[in-house]
Amino acid sequence: MPNNPEWVKALKPSGPQGSELLSQERAKSNLNVDQLADFMFTREILERNGRILKILQSDPVFDKSQNYFRGRISRIEAALARGKRLQQLQVKHNWTRDEYQTASDLISEPTPYGLHSSMFLVTLREQGTPEQHKLFLEKAEAYKIIGCYAQTELGHGSNVRGLETTATWNSSDKTFTINSPYLTASKWWIGSLGRTANHAVVMAQLFIDGKPYGPHPFVVQVRDMKTHEPLPGVHVGDIGPKFGYNTMDNGFLLFKNVKIPHINMLARFSSVDPTPTNITIVLQAGSTLARGVTIATRYCAVRRQFQDRDIHEPGENQVLNYTMVQIRLLPLLAATYALHFTGKSMIRLYQENQKRMSAGDAGKLSDSTRGPGPEELNPGTDLLADLHSTSCALKAFGSTTAAEGLEVCRRACGGHGYSSFSGIGTWYADYLPTVTWEGDNYMLTQQVSRYLLKSARSVLQGKAAKNDTTRILIDFISRRDIGCAFDVIGNDEDLVAAFAWRVSFLTFEALRHRDEDKQSWNSLLVDFWRLSTAHAQYMIVKNFHDALRDPGTKKELDANTVALLHKLFRLYALHTLEREASEFYSSAAVTVRQITLARTKTVMKLLEEIRPHAVRLVDAWKFPDWQLDSSLGRYDGNVYEDMFHRASELNPLNNIVFDPYPDSKTLFKKDERKDLRSKL
Amino acid sequence: MPNNPEWVKALKPSGPQGSELLSQERAKSNLNVDQLADFMFTREILERNGRILKILQSDPVFDKSQNYFRGRISRIEAALARGKRLQQLQVKHNWTRDEYQTASDLISEPTPYGLHSSMFLVTLREQGTPEQHKLFLEKAEAYKIIGCYAQTELGHGSNVRGLETTATWNSSDKTFTINSPYLTASKWWIGSLGRTANHAVVMAQLFIDGKPYGPHPFVVQVRDMKTHEPLPGVHVGDIGPKFGYNTMDNGFLLFKNVKIPHINMLARFSSVDPTPTNITIVLQAGSTLARGVTIATRYCAVRRQFQDRDIHEPGENQVLNYTMVQIRLLPLLAATYALHFTGKSMIRLYQENQKRMSAGDAGKLSDSTRGPGPEELNPGTDLLADLHSTSCALKAFGSTTAAEGLEVCRRACGGHGYSSFSGIGTWYADYLPTVTWEGDNYMLTQQVSRYLLKSARSVLQGKAAKNDTTRILIDFISRRDIGCAFDVIGNDEDLVAAFAWRVSFLTFEALRHRDEDKQSWNSLLVDFWRLSTAHAQYMIVKNFHDALRDPGTKKELDANTVALLHKLFRLYALHTLEREASEFYSSAAVTVRQITLARTKTVMKLLEEIRPHAVRLVDAWKFPDWQLDSSLGRYDGNVYEDMFHRASELNPLNNIVFDPYPDSKTLFKKDERKDLRSKL
Repeated sequence: MPNNPEWVKALKPSGPQGSELLSQERAKSNLNVDQLADFMFTREILERNGRILKILQSDPVFDKSQNYFRGRISRIEAALARGKRLQQLQVKHNWTRDEYQTASDLISEPTPYGLHSSMFLVTLREQGTPEQHKLFLEKAEAYKIIGCYAQTELGHGSNVRGLETTATWNSSDKTFTINSPYLTASKWWIGSLGRTANHAVVMAQLFIDGKPYGPHPFVVQVRDMKTHEPLPGVHVGDIGPKFGYNTMDNGFLLFKNVKIPHINMLARFSSVDPTPTNITIVLQAGSTLARGVTIATRYCAVRRQFQDRDIHEPGENQVLNYTMVQIRLLPLLAATYALHFTGKSMIRLYQENQKRMSAGDAGKLSDSTRGPGPEELNPGTDLLADLHSTSCALKAFGSTTAAEGLEVCRRACGGHGYSSFSGIGTWYADYLPTVTWEGDNYMLTQQVSRYLLKSARSVLQGKAAKNDTTRILIDFISRRDIGCAFDVIGNDEDLVAAFAWRVSFLTFEALRHRDEDKQSWNSLLVDFWRLSTAHAQYMIVKNFHDALRDPGTKKELDANTVALLHKLFRLYALHTLEREASEFYSSAAVTVRQITLARTKTVMKLLEEIRPHAVRLVDAWKFPDWQLDSSLGRYDGNVYEDMFHRASELNPLNNIVFDPYPDSKTLFKKDERKDLRSKL
Repeated sequence: MPNNPEWVKALKPSGPQGSELLSQERAKSNLNVDQLADFMFTREILERNGRILKILQSDPVFDKSQNYFRGRISRIEAALARGKRLQQLQVKHNWTRDEYQTASDLISEPTPYGLHSSMFLVTLREQGTPEQHKLFLEKAEAYKIIGCYAQTELGHGSNVRGLETTATWNSSDKTFTINSPYLTASKWWIGSLGRTANHAVVMAQLFIDGKPYGPHPFVVQVRDMKTHEPLPGVHVGDIGPKFGYNTMDNGFLLFKNVKIPHINMLARFSSVDPTPTNITIVLQAGSTLARGVTIATRYCAVRRQFQDRDIHEPGENQVLNYTMVQIRLLPLLAATYALHFTGKSMIRLYQENQKRMSAGDAGKLSDSTRGPGPEELNPGTDLLADLHSTSCALKAFGSTTAAEGLEVCRRACGGHGYSSFSGIGTWYADYLPTVTWEGDNYMLTQQVSRYLLKSARSVLQGKAAKNDTTRILIDFISRRDIGCAFDVIGNDEDLVAAFAWRVSFLTFEALRHRDEDKQSWNSLLVDFWRLSTAHAQYMIVKNFHDALRDPGTKKELDANTVALLHKLFRLYALHTLEREASEFYSSAAVTVRQITLARTKTVMKLLEEIRPHAVRLVDAWKFPDWQLDSSLGRYDGNVYEDMFHRASELNPLNNIVFDPYPDSKTLFKKDERKDLRSKL
């Protein structure tokens, strides 16, 4: 790598230094950062994270300094080495699943073992018999079998019933023949399959005596255990580069009449409840977005540009002082906390319900809330169905909020946000699949709406279930004729109630279109998407509000921390209300005057009040610099030194001297790259 | 590269084939694609594009097949080779600027010569004296001097007055000393500087006898003409990888007291009018977005997923038939045409005004519309100032629409949108800087608002200028007390008038806050941003409407083409009205009932009516497959074959065999990459 000459090393950024500005920011606010962080994550987990961080940082395999410079092959090579090392460390330190996950989060890039350690092991564990556990699971846990979960095909994503791969039963020799009758039957997007896995759980349409029995899971070996070359009749490989996630070898897979023994069909059928996955995504959406907000907030406190037009002080203004920057960043800062408290509360609710269920006290997941089944009336709506529907709405809305919020954060960093060194671009690109996988966000909104419509029908028929959704629907019905008058600016309960009112209004509107006007399902998809979004926003506002009223919160946090969180709650709720104003108007939940006031007075006032605490509020998320890997988001504010160091001293392109004249015979006058593979 | 085995080559996608589906789509619509394309671009230009395409396609330097697989260094190496070849072809075929631009558009990636051929040559031409032309421009035009335009610094982007690089006059030897006093003075983001340029136009603060004279441009040689190594006292290099634009070597540059002769200060001061650049960006925003819309529309006609819930036909439904997909794609399709016609009309207006100006008939660009100067009243608001302000509003809104619209298109492609082979991701990433450069979009909205406020003051004082902005403000004032009653659903003129009314309402609101309530400028930035957006939307709706009423349009196009464009106009306008509903309510331009009707009835009806023509409407944009470089957007609909071919036969990662066991000594069992540089 080139070194900076001495005279360059002697240069400093013009003052005030970034480190001085961030120190001033932290001095301006009395927020107790550690107390808030302990409350959010627990002291124990923060200390554990620190311990694991030390292990990773001291290991050269996890050195991040060349990450942003590498091409796909070098990146996946590094990720493979990291995946291996991570597995060795897990064995060495006897890490729990949570500790392994923490290490992965700190490394912050997928490794080629990702789908082995998640979906493959889980599927074998849950859907395998004891005999199958002995045959496959034990070896898989020891990383002798490396596997993946092969469901999606080139021609079919969300619609599992449309899969084309077949598994035909041969009664003569008690085997199945796995076959890909079409090119579109090729498995596609399968994580860890492209170059890593030697086995796959393959979802295939089962045929017995020519009769179809729907999709079933089969364990199929795809590569030789020694040479790692594809087995005969198997065509397998990596599907190529993607917008992000390029350290993962998503793969394709075709079979030409491959025979497998009977024992390879996973026999212990157990339906997978997607609710915990959805809830995890909601909680993660908060921290995912918080990384971007941390980076942008710190940088906007360091970056100064222009003087304030009305205040004639010398020097330039911190960008974070401009209201146009505040209105983009601070509601997102509020959203990170809102999503965190919502995720936490959903986890608690789910765990409580699981306990109750094992005590036989609660219902089962009703079938019609999963997949596009018929929407017949089912009066047995219960807590689990409610939780499932809410988790779908929150997964769709939360992951969209995080993905789109990250891009807002990147742009709030101005020109430098476009540099890879901002640390936001790669993170955003890697996160994007979350809006599509585990249920496409638009598809999920149909499930949510189906549930809300069913609940509304039950309410109208006097067969109401006991849950929050039913409660707000009944409340709406009882007040519909006299109307509502919510004081959204002066009263928090009214603010939450206005969000509930809007959900109920949209639900009964949609119900009328479907049941009375007999509108087609397809013609209502846009309404359903709005309805699901409204429901998610209500849940987030409600959960944030509940978290602040919780006695535990007031016990663990200083009064002024609670007061500041309360401001974030109001900012999140009122800013959302204003962005979705037209639905609040048309449902008559609020007046035009109220929204105008909320926007021009209350929201602007809240921005001003939260502004001095912004840096401490992102500090409470406790991201180590090593995890952020961002010049702009450094805790110490030494933004420009870090940008310059990475560009001039780490950048391998600067080892090449171009030959710049169009008619010259060569492209490069000099090429000092020695170890190409590690640098490209 | 690996080859597919014979049995894989024999596989077809399951039917109906993509090619059949797109043929059916084209058969369903009677839109005359060629006539519409001729009207938009002229036959002459389309034929010229075809001629240039042939030249590029037959040249192996421009082979795109490995583009998506390459790492940064290999990509910029290819781009350098292409830049050189492009220059040779320009000489050989004696291409005009327009033809050269066409070739660049077809290649669709920046080359390291980008800033030489644009900003460097233009600046020398416009700001150099005849003597300086002889000294620098002639050599630059012959590519003996390769240059760039070095303005932005590490610490200063938008605020040119804050630049830190200094140029100090030495009267003793009649030289200037160029110096970088701080690290933040480093030039940064300078296109073509990183590895390519040997000269730079450097913007530096001029000091004479210790007195500052503000930023001035200086020609500075930075690299040796033979070795291409940096000259003494110059530290220069590439700033590293970015979210996109990685085929360009954006650079940094520091000086340690480098002396240059007096003649190197560009002496013929001429202010640059940003209006034509803004207008070009508006026109390009239409075609930029159209690429994404073309790809997504074609793919959504080929992709089939699920059956319609209410229509029990065999087989799955084309994704484009779902209203949730239509509401995302078709308003963007309408936006591509809206932006195109707006850009065209702005160009015409600008050219007419230039003619009038040279005839001495029109005013000059008034100083206070550029940069954050004082906002004193200037009654001489004229057509040019209006045009400038409009172009700022349209640049900000148009480029944001294109960038965000591309991401909507990518997601509308479902999972496959995430693959690089979708052709949208790279295109989006390369386009993103447009929202920041040539005036950050948020900064520009301040200029627009300043102009609108000034115009409003003039109107109130009875000193109105003659232009459209003044016309709508006067109209508003005259009807403010009696109110308005726009029939936005039944009457096009009323629809346009509602957009004008909203702009005027917001203008006078902002004026009241500023002049009567004495609110600070900073506290109004969010209002200004809304105001500028409203103004841009009004201009686009108005220009689209005007284009359709133009007698020339009706002469050149069939009646049913005009009728279809009219539907696109109404979809664009009503969909925008509904998205911005709260501002239309609060300005009392429309009622809640009207917006509800527009949304639930009119917009949904328009989607249904436009749907059958969607594929032909994107065909009219006439993007060759070679330019799109997209599996999903292929004209012939052979989507899956192309995806599979690229993944399995072009993908260099499949030449490597992983060693998948964590404890093994090696990472790879086999590595068949022979020519690393061309593949990574």
